[in-house]
Amino acid sequence: MMKTFILIFQCKDQKGIVAKVSELIFKCNGNIVALDQYSTHLKAGRLFMRIEFMAEEKDLIKDKLDRQIKSIARYFKAGFKLYDKGRMLRMGVLVSKPDHCLADILYLQKRGELPVEIPFVISNFLGHREMVEQYKIPFYFIPAAKKNRKEDEILRHALQSTDFLVLARYMLVLSPKFIKTYGKDIINIHHGLLPSFKGANPYQQALDAGVKEIGATAHFVTAKLDVGPIIAQAVEQVSHKDDLKSLLLKGMSLEKRALNDALHAYIEHRVIRFKDKTVIF
Amino acid sequence: MMKTFILIFQCKDQKGIVAKVSELIFKCNGNIVALDQYSTHLKAGRLFMRIEFMAEEKDLIKDKLDRQIKSIARYFKAGFKLYDKGRMLRMGVLVSKPDHCLADILYLQKRGELPVEIPFVISNFLGHREMVEQYKIPFYFIPAAKKNRKEDEILRHALQSTDFLVLARYMLVLSPKFIKTYGKDIINIHHGLLPSFKGANPYQQALDAGVKEIGATAHFVTAKLDVGPIIAQAVEQVSHKDDLKSLLLKGMSLEKRALNDALHAYIEHRVIRFKDKTVIF
Amino acid sequence: MMKTFILIFQCKDQKGIVAKVSELIFKCNGNIVALDQYSTHLKAGRLFMRIEFMAEEKDLIKDKLDRQIKSIARYFKAGFKLYDKGRMLRMGVLVSKPDHCLADILYLQKRGELPVEIPFVISNFLGHREMVEQYKIPFYFIPAAKKNRKEDEILRHALQSTDFLVLARYMLVLSPKFIKTYGKDIINIHHGLLPSFKGANPYQQALDAGVKEIGATAHFVTAKLDVGPIIAQAVEQVSHKDDLKSLLLKGMSLEKRALNDALHAYIEHRVIRFKDKTVIF
Amino acid sequence: MMKTFILIFQCKDQKGIVAKVSELIFKCNGNIVALDQYSTHLKAGRLFMRIEFMAEEKDLIKDKLDRQIKSIARYFKAGFKLYDKGRMLRMGVLVSKPDHCLADILYLQKRGELPVEIPFVISNFLGHREMVEQYKIPFYFIPAAKKNRKEDEILRHALQSTDFLVLARYMLVLSPKFIKTYGKDIINIHHGLLPSFKGANPYQQALDAGVKEIGATAHFVTAKLDVGPIIAQAVEQVSHKDDLKSLLLKGMSLEKRALNDALHAYIEHRVIRFKDKTVIF
Repeated sequence: MMKTFILIFQCKDQKGIVAKVSELIFKCNGNIVALDQYSTHLKAGRLFMRIEFMAEEKDLIKDKLDRQIKSIARYFKAGFKLYDKGRMLRMGVLVSKPDHCLADILYLQKRGELPVEIPFVISNFLGHREMVEQYKIPFYFIPAAKKNRKEDEILRHALQSTDFLVLARYMLVLSPKFIKTYGKDIINIHHGLLPSFKGANPYQQALDAGVKEIGATAHFVTAKLDVGPIIAQAVEQVSHKDDLKSLLLKGMSLEKRALNDALHAYIEHRVIRFKDKTVIF
Repeated sequence: MMKTFILIFQCKDQKGIVAKVSELIFKCNGNIVALDQYSTHLKAGRLFMRIEFMAEEKDLIKDKLDRQIKSIARYFKAGFKLYDKGRMLRMGVLVSKPDHCLADILYLQKRGELPVEIPFVISNFLGHREMVEQYKIPFYFIPAAKKNRKEDEILRHALQSTDFLVLARYMLVLSPKFIKTYGKDIINIHHGLLPSFKGANPYQQALDAGVKEIGATAHFVTAKLDVGPIIAQAVEQVSHKDDLKSLLLKGMSLEKRALNDALHAYIEHRVIRFKDKTVIF
Repeated sequence: MMKTFILIFQCKDQKGIVAKVSELIFKCNGNIVALDQYSTHLKAGRLFMRIEFMAEEKDLIKDKLDRQIKSIARYFKAGFKLYDKGRMLRMGVLVSKPDHCLADILYLQKRGELPVEIPFVISNFLGHREMVEQYKIPFYFIPAAKKNRKEDEILRHALQSTDFLVLARYMLVLSPKFIKTYGKDIINIHHGLLPSFKGANPYQQALDAGVKEIGATAHFVTAKLDVGPIIAQAVEQVSHKDDLKSLLLKGMSLEKRALNDALHAYIEHRVIRFKDKTVIF
Repeated sequence: MMKTFILIFQCKDQKGIVAKVSELIFKCNGNIVALDQYSTHLKAGRLFMRIEFMAEEKDLIKDKLDRQIKSIARYFKAGFKLYDKGRMLRMGVLVSKPDHCLADILYLQKRGELPVEIPFVISNFLGHREMVEQYKIPFYFIPAAKKNRKEDEILRHALQSTDFLVLARYMLVLSPKFIKTYGKDIINIHHGLLPSFKGANPYQQALDAGVKEIGATAHFVTAKLDVGPIIAQAVEQVSHKDDLKSLLLKGMSLEKRALNDALHAYIEHRVIRFKDKTVIF
């Protein structure tokens, strides 16, 4: 039985990193399937590396491997993560009324085209219950009053059972406290081409600006609204003939594309965050 | 001998406009080659129309036609312009040091792919003289001190001899007084996807924002910096691998595309300005 | 009460067409919302026109209008169609096993983003029954043996109850006899960028050819396989990293985009067929 | 003084390759700037690797390094190439009458945006002499009769003085004998989206096919016409309004984009040929 692991590694650029890590993999009888290494050209260069490698199950004890990599990482003062490719990530979904991204995610997940587990869908819109439960996924209706976002309730569901959250058109702003307590990645789809058109009604903003290209942006959520590291963007031409209705329709397609690109990159561990940017291998 | 005219017409949306205008053209023995009419869906709808029609030269006396259309326009409280398609527009070019758009314009114009007359190229960079004069186009070097932009000198060249100006990467901001005195259209190419990244160094701004799509925008110049009506935009995907140098290179291609699209639309009289937007037929 | 009509008109290019038609509309107290007229530049030029106009219901008696336009059309030896914009088209859906286009169509139609009636979904794959019936749309399972395509059964459903058919990834080839008997438009989505990669397994063909762009094509069905008039195409970049699985995934998104573009253009009566091409206003 | 080398390596997929090569680089005191490794998922997987690394000049003796890598390559039965990044490739240019790609190449090369040496431009069209010589590049006029392509004359110029050839819209077909004798890479720009529209007049073919997307393809030349491994493609939307003239204009932009993408990838040694395909890192 073969197993495949993915190692993500980042640190200050230094000599010998690839040699050390690839030697370790070789000693485990591992075969490198794909390796991407990229260093920024900045003065204090930073190295990003993703290695996908496979080996006989008996040669790859995850705990042992983890310890060995930790010792390399310590030497280079690096951060790293080691993923078992066979273990699906658990993705919690938060969604408000617009449900095109939700419908797309549920469809793709069921067909095996989006290999994640979905422990729940949480919405402040009750109407999604039927669709979600048709896919046999737990649905929680958590209404949100202006004063009381009931974030604790969301956290109670999310903390243990998810590896990351996706806001598939979730219109409520998560508090910095929530983001900090959750502590894992949260991916949002914004229906505008960031950094343009932050905040509410980006398609109306685009219409008012008279742009000839509109877009959507999938990005990590940070404490600041609509400014987290961008993972994927999609764009499409528009013209004077487009009104708000047709922008919304084109936007639905763009949002699905950008979010899908981002989710696929994320669950294949091809996304590395660094400060306010991403490296996408 | 056949002649072709292009009529641009805009006013508050009303009944009977197409009937009246097309009847006039029919009476001139004219044949409509292309007609685009579009009305905004807003409450106080606005009608935009472009008609391209041809007729025997003897049947189309421009002055007479002009008077007849004026009388229709008065009835509908409309603005209109009538262009003889056979008469080339005269395009004055202003350019600073980056010369990729200039080189492209000169090349295309010489090959007949950009059917305009170019009465002059004005630059605050002396080094372009050789290239411009190889194309047998007058070149004026007008250096610009911070305090003294010598706009009067530019106006002296432009006022009489041009139908419109293009800023083909002209890095100096034209004063509201210049724009008002010149009184005709001025088209600028901005090396960012407006409304993102206004002002200086848009590629550096894009890099700092970590975007995955960059773009360029051709727009009309107004008194406000980088916010005039957008005519054309071009976009291209970028990745973490792109540094400032590669963004500049991709940008050169994007700027040429957006500017060319805009210039072709403009000289074919397919661009109609209305407030802070454009209709591009 | 206002009503909106759409008139499609095509004939040999001649003088006075717009004048005659717009005069008629004016006499009905009609207001032209949008007019597109385009004539091919060929020697024997051909004129294509689409007029969208609205008027008080009492001034627009469809039968009367129809007669009046018929008389104009006879004069110009033109073909025409007059549509009541308020009347939804009835779209029959045929689909084999891949159901991403089907799911998208059903979703958009329910949300009102694809304003058509769907009298039925016919499939040679029984498994779609559940999804289709959740949307409360009749589902007919018509299995197809190699020798017996049971096209008569399909025709029995389609002839009276549909205005057009869409093959939303229908893998069986319709016979020339079927196409002739049905006599109305049939739109197919082909998962390749026609005219490249006709026939079976276009993504495998694309992989073998080592292309760097893949696409999908929505086109009218004619008696010849995969060569009918193209309505819409969508493209996306691929790389050496893409294998058949990832091409299929990207393709799903492309097919939905091309088919949606085509269906929207078609149901808004913006598509005019002429010989082996289309004019899309 | 730092030097940068680029190593291209390909062989049957095996364990230990990255470990061996990166160890060697580490021993030379080298720092890996970028590493891309990709293995095909096929049964008999094939490994492709590109490593860019830098070191003190004194530690990197090219001949010695070459010998050391050769010994590793022999062990893995691999093919490899080692490039000194500081050494510019020499690119011979062949061109017929259409000169938009030529003009673009000369412009970019002069500005330092296309870091190659251009030992000559050869054309069967005399008219390009002036432009080429303005850039101080040798120009050879080699007219081609149907029976006598004078390929020997081209070879005499190309064999010693070039690292590769680019056919920047060269309309004559090179003989298999020429390709074999030259023995190095030849890059062609074809003005169609291969594998569609091979051979002559691809834009006319696209017009006849009524496609809604056109494209251009940069590919390696092989003995078969227009079927060599594809390096880069560019696409753009067209509509029924486009005639041959406007397709040619849009095509000029597409050809420049595809060719530039290909040339940049090639001179940065990011292109690996394998059979009838390419890996572009």
